[in-house]
Amino acid sequence: MATGFHDVSDETIDVPVAGARREILDAAASCFFERGYSATSIDDVARRLGSTKGRIYHHYASKADLFGDVFKTGMDMNFRAILPEFSADCPTHEKLARMARTHTRQMIETKPYQRAVWEGVEMHIRSAAKPGQRSTLTELLAYRDRYSDLFKTTLSECRENGLLDFENLSIANQVMFVALNSPLFWYSPEPGKHRAELDSVIDQVVAIVMRGLGYKGDLTS
Amino acid sequence: MATGFHDVSDETIDVPVAGARREILDAAASCFFERGYSATSIDDVARRLGSTKGRIYHHYASKADLFGDVFKTGMDMNFRAILPEFSADCPTHEKLARMARTHTRQMIETKPYQRAVWEGVEMHIRSAAKPGQRSTLTELLAYRDRYSDLFKTTLSECRENGLLDFENLSIANQVMFVALNSPLFWYSPEPGKHRAELDSVIDQVVAIVMRGLGYKGDLTS
Repeated sequence: MATGFHDVSDETIDVPVAGARREILDAAASCFFERGYSATSIDDVARRLGSTKGRIYHHYASKADLFGDVFKTGMDMNFRAILPEFSADCPTHEKLARMARTHTRQMIETKPYQRAVWEGVEMHIRSAAKPGQRSTLTELLAYRDRYSDLFKTTLSECRENGLLDFENLSIANQVMFVALNSPLFWYSPEPGKHRAELDSVIDQVVAIVMRGLGYKGDLTS
Repeated sequence: MATGFHDVSDETIDVPVAGARREILDAAASCFFERGYSATSIDDVARRLGSTKGRIYHHYASKADLFGDVFKTGMDMNFRAILPEFSADCPTHEKLARMARTHTRQMIETKPYQRAVWEGVEMHIRSAAKPGQRSTLTELLAYRDRYSDLFKTTLSECRENGLLDFENLSIANQVMFVALNSPLFWYSPEPGKHRAELDSVIDQVVAIVMRGLGYKGDLTS
């Protein structure tokens, strides 16, 4: 069934790390988010953590390793959030809308991790990674592709069912992802009116995307 | 009239630089594109240029200055391309579609410059800029906002005329820009079948965006 697609299932996806390693990852994600990969040092992360570099090197051999684990954890979070939606027993267009909403919510609620994923993709496009880093990055990108494929499958099913209407599947999938990811770059929830505003932002982004892909029905969440 | 909006007109927008400075900018844009701002040095740019650092320092006091001029030139190119469309005498939705097409073409045809603009925006969001850089970056962002306002005005007119249907103008504008910019990250024209493929990619992206914003009409370019 659907959940077995490309061997992606609850059993094959790691639970995002917790505990001591997670504290390091949170600090690292914040630093990468604020300065970008190149301008961040292990010193910066240690300072953010209020700890010694030794504590970080106990878990990670290098900045590249640390970055890789932030990326991996961000994707673990996304998989964990999206798999229940992907395997939901509901009409395909509803499934896609739910996946799109959940993905967009992830972008906002786990922003520093998701910006690291974005930067990893940019580094890959740039071929900016050093040889040692490159194979890790390629693996991480493959992991992200498996995630992207869950959406691609759903998009394709929707089109077969006449619920969506677009020309090239890959182009539709790419434009969809960039649009759903876009709050990474323009939205920071204001404290206080958080919840209702957040829901409205997500609904508006998803509505633009679903309609853009040719969906003509109602879009109440 | 429309062209006078926010003092943006052919008279107030610089012609993109040419000649010796343009050669430096082309080399710098390629380097920033491949490595990102932090990881690029003036040495890298000189090497790409097959020249000495002195030639660069003759025109630019620092890497930040050089980056600023790449950003500025990328926006000059966009303004020059979009102003004729913005002041075209045609139905509003047609004007928007033409502006969207032209903008997307710019992203593909002047990609290294546009990636620098994107990175400048990211640096601004991150507050990654150093104090000295910050005021230049703020000015550049304001220049980009004037460009974005041309689209915002057109979106708003379309909605008033009942041609588009979206909730929040700023959100619609942001999602639109990110989607139109997205080929920066996923499209590299294959040599040979360049022209027809390029046109098709642009048409597909613009179709998704226009429909996403609520346009229900025909979209033949």
